[in-house]
This record gives sequence, C-alpha cells and structure tokens, in this order.
Amino acid sequence: MPSPDAVVDLLGVLAYGELSAFDRLADDARMAPDLAGRAEMSAMAAVEFGHYRLLADRLVALGADPAAAMDPFTAALETYHSLTEPSTWLEGVVKAYVGDGIAADFYREVAAFVDAADRDTADLIRDVLAEGERAAFAVREVKAAVAERPAVSGRLALWARRLVGEAISQAQHVLADRDSLMLLLVEGSGDLAGVATLISRLTDRHEERMTALGLSS
Amino acid sequence: MPSPDAVVDLLGVLAYGELSAFDRLADDARMAPDLAGRAEMSAMAAVEFGHYRLLADRLVALGADPAAAMDPFTAALETYHSLTEPSTWLEGVVKAYVGDGIAADFYREVAAFVDAADRDTADLIRDVLAEGERAAFAVREVKAAVAERPAVSGRLALWARRLVGEAISQAQHVLADRDSLMLLLVEGSGDLAGVATLISRLTDRHEERMTALGLSS
Repeated sequence: MPSPDAVVDLLGVLAYGELSAFDRLADDARMAPDLAGRAEMSAMAAVEFGHYRLLADRLVALGADPAAAMDPFTAALETYHSLTEPSTWLEGVVKAYVGDGIAADFYREVAAFVDAADRDTADLIRDVLAEGERAAFAVREVKAAVAERPAVSGRLALWARRLVGEAISQAQHVLADRDSLMLLLVEGSGDLAGVATLISRLTDRHEERMTALGLSS
Repeated sequence: MPSPDAVVDLLGVLAYGELSAFDRLADDARMAPDLAGRAEMSAMAAVEFGHYRLLADRLVALGADPAAAMDPFTAALETYHSLTEPSTWLEGVVKAYVGDGIAADFYREVAAFVDAADRDTADLIRDVLAEGERAAFAVREVKAAVAERPAVSGRLALWARRLVGEAISQAQHVLADRDSLMLLLVEGSGDLAGVATLISRLTDRHEERMTALGLSS
C-alpha cells in the first residue's frame, strides 16, 4: 500500500513535469517553420498546462501545496530539459513525442501502483498521460522531413537515443533522492525482477514510437 | 457595412495577437519569483491559446486560412513584443495587464463596428477579450512590490508609458498598411472626430488600469 507521501510525491513530480513541458513546448514552438506548425506545438503546450492544473487541483484536494510538492523535483527536470534543449524544429518535435512519451509510460506504470490506495488519483494520472494527437503530428513532421532529406534520419535517431539516456539518468537521480518513490516502484513491481520487467516494457514502447517515426535501427 | 475582408483582417490580427501573447506570457512566466507566480502567468498564456483557437476556428468557418490571415500582422506584433521585452518579473506583469489591456480595449471598440455585418464574430471577439482574473493578479503583484520598495513605482509607471507608446506606434503601422482596417475604423467611428473620441476612451480606460495598480501620476 503506497504511503500518502508517495502519492503527493508522484503528483508533485508529474505536476512539475507538466508545467515544465508547457514551458519548453511553448519555447520550442518558436522554431516552427510556419505559423501552422507553431500553432500546433503551442496547442500541445496549452494541453500540458491543462494537465498541470488538474494535478495541482488534486494536490490541493489532498491537502498539499502544489508549489511545495513540486519543489523537490524542479532541479532534476530542469537538468533534463537543459541537457536536451532542441536546436532545430525537428529535434523539438521528436522530443515532444519520444521524450515525453517515455516519461508518460513510466508514470503510467507507477500510477498502477497507486490504484489500491487512491483509485481516483490513479485514474486522473492515466487521463493526463493519454498521448492525444501528438503521435500523428510527430510522425507527419518527421516523415516529411526524412523524405526530403534522408540524412536527417540518422541524426534524429541519435537525438532520440540521447533523450532516452538523459531521461533515465534524471529518473535515477529522482529515485535516489526520494525514498517514497523508490519504495513505490520496488513494492509496486513486486521485487527487483519486477523492476527489470517494467524497464523492458518501457523499452518496447519506446521502440514502437521509433518505428512509427521511421527512425528505428 | 464592413467588408468581409475587414472581418478576416480583424480576426487575423487578433488571432496572431493571441498566439504571440501566448508565446510571450509563457516566456515571461520563467521570470516568476516562485512556482505559484510562474503557474499563474502560465495559466494566462494557456487562456490566450484557447482564445487563439476560437479565433482560428472562426476564420476556418468563414472560409479563410488562419495562417494566411495572420501573416500580414506578424511583423508589427513581433516588433511590438521585441521593443517591449520585459526585463523583470514586474515589467512582465505590468505588460500582461496594461499592454494587453489597451490592445483589448482597442479591438473591442473595433468589434462593435462588425456587429451589423457579423454579430456572431463580434460576440466572439468580445468574449475573447474579457479581462478575466488578470487585473486582480497584476494589482496584487505590483502593490506588494511597491509596498516593499516604493522606488519601483516610478520605474513601472515609465514602463507602462513605454508600452502604450509602442502599442500606438505599431497600431498606426498596421492601419497604414491595411486599408480594410483603416476604413473599418473611420467608417465605424463615423468620422475623424469619432476616431478622436475613441482614442480618448482608450486613454481613460488605460488611466483606470494605472490607478488600479497605484501607478497613476
């Protein structure tokens, strides 16, 4: 049974994840080659802010202060974003789909562990993490770019690998720092073998996204 | 009776105004002194994006392409934003209230001229421009800062004057460029004396905002 602290921590890291995703998508939207693309990425940013609002409201409903709940996680998430700042529009598109995708998969796994203690919160987390129209957008942009300049494909595949590497590295920092989340993960998975299975599920889903983009090796 | 072109132009300049306001508020939110303030300004940005979506949908309903309708106005609005880039959190807060406020008042005046031709569009514009909770937020932030450091007040008053000056200057550029909007303004006001009355109404409302902030001279 997860502790109330673990639920607040989970909501806190998710809430800051959404707030910083909002911020970064809004920023990356500026690199769009045209107004339509800029509006599309800005729309994703606005959706993330809507999610932030839902998570912050849930924290308030649980008696927690959203800013205090987010605070322990700001450094790790800012480090992730500063190490994976896209330098082109396509890198931004891939990050919005692949980077945010693997994070969403991870949080969705952890949400399952919260079900027994707080079904409503687990449902909220699953809603917030739904992929929406992001996949179609990323696939369209990347495939069009690769069709025009095939060399782009190798660079984007490397970029995606870097995104995953940095995401894993920051996740390890967060878990090492927050006993409540580490316990939630290990107890929820059953044992360390369960954690290994979870990681292999995440890897499989990441590969599916790379295949959808036409970037798998 | 305004021409259909004038309605598309009006929706186009408003739509780009909202898209660029989204972008700038999202950017300025980073200067917030704390996570609560950052979330609050990010929320304003998300609201602007929702407005953009409504205006873009209306353009599509009128058979216009949103990107094409916005395109003639991007340069003037980007110039306004680049000449009024806030260098502190408080400058950002004042810009979000005073700068966006005078623009909203102006567009609301112009929307009235569209009533006869397209009541639905005029209603949509008025809805989109409603001030919301922005006033309370700006007043709280500015009064708290001035209470702590009274010298801030003079600097912010100057800053607000600059915002208005740049807004007027860019509005003149837009009107000089777009005959349809200039005609809408002059015909809607009745004559040049009507335009002068309109300007004095805008000035009055600007003064009300400055008084609310405690920054009026």
